[in-house]
Amino acid sequence: MRKGSILYRAAKAATTRQQILALAADLASAEGVEGLTIGRLAAELRMSKTGIFAHFGSKEELQIATVNRAKEVFLEQVVKPALAEPRGVRRLQAMLAHWLKYVEQSIFRGGCFFAAASLEFDSRPGRVRDCVAALTKAWVDALRNEIAYAKAKKQIARGIVPAQLAFELHAFVQEANWAYKLHEDRSAFPRARRAITDRISSISRSSEQKLELKGSEP
Amino acid sequence: MRKGSILYRAAKAATTRQQILALAADLASAEGVEGLTIGRLAAELRMSKTGIFAHFGSKEELQIATVNRAKEVFLEQVVKPALAEPRGVRRLQAMLAHWLKYVEQSIFRGGCFFAAASLEFDSRPGRVRDCVAALTKAWVDALRNEIAYAKAKKQIARGIVPAQLAFELHAFVQEANWAYKLHEDRSAFPRARRAITDRISSISRSSEQKLELKGSEP
Repeated sequence: MRKGSILYRAAKAATTRQQILALAADLASAEGVEGLTIGRLAAELRMSKTGIFAHFGSKEELQIATVNRAKEVFLEQVVKPALAEPRGVRRLQAMLAHWLKYVEQSIFRGGCFFAAASLEFDSRPGRVRDCVAALTKAWVDALRNEIAYAKAKKQIARGIVPAQLAFELHAFVQEANWAYKLHEDRSAFPRARRAITDRISSISRSSEQKLELKGSEP
Repeated sequence: MRKGSILYRAAKAATTRQQILALAADLASAEGVEGLTIGRLAAELRMSKTGIFAHFGSKEELQIATVNRAKEVFLEQVVKPALAEPRGVRRLQAMLAHWLKYVEQSIFRGGCFFAAASLEFDSRPGRVRDCVAALTKAWVDALRNEIAYAKAKKQIARGIVPAQLAFELHAFVQEANWAYKLHEDRSAFPRARRAITDRISSISRSSEQKLELKGSEP
């Protein structure tokens, strides 16, 4: 591509935008999406404020683009590898395991981007909050749907209420993120793994069948 | 008390300080402790900035005093009523029930003050973070100690690891706070109650005894 050509400039702009957003998502996970300022980003990236402003136009656009960047990272690190597993209990376990790994590896310096952004925006109405709420809801729904699938395929006990189980499993990963970030407590990860494993094996059909076998003994 | 006397002025200052902190804790639960500014408080309370500044001296002192005010509310609303119950499983259940009620009743406009403050400060080293971390750790420890007591008194199954169970139960209440604040999902409260009840009854000695009786059948 010829330097100075329209295509070259467009490609360069896209790269710069990606660089800005990578830093923005990382900073926002630790210091809050509200705390993102064009000045701060310009200083860290050694760019002019005007240069950064040109990519987004407003603080709100920058915030929304940052949330979308975090979504892409989550899709890449958590959702995509889980999709490699067969549907039902195995995919459910993979979704939780990869989510926990993404928190444990501190892909963002502030832990789970969405956990931080949810608490930051839950009382601040507006487009950023709506975006964060929609994305986190989609993830809870995805867990619930996988549980409903597992139930329909008789992989888990009949009595399970998918929304209830999704609530409990989702809680364990969020708790691990909280304990690790605030108390620097790495034991939170094995605890969350233990809680998830115990909960899922307590309702998996194999153990239910065992119970039924026991119940039918003389 | 004579108007203008030293005692009168001291009592009036204490009342004003309490008024400032009541508003500060409420605002901070929704908009963040970092977002607290003397200017904002002065505007809402129709006081001069100098008047407010005189009570705290610095922004950090104001933040620490706000966290301590939130602690007092938590003690009053959650800890004190739970202490009325006998130690062990009953007190553990009361601690969780009152905590959930305090979240559900939105004692602070932003939900659980400490859930909001933890996520806000987990990546911001300093005195405010240390204070929030110490208080939330004390609460997790209190849950764990109550479980350890219940175990020592044989109210719950022998195999229970108190720190593991405390992690799980604590997670359910934090999840309810998260779901309610972000998704305005009131069903999160019955879900958390169901999760807590199921978890505790699955390990209470009465059900264990039942299992043992079953196990000893011919």
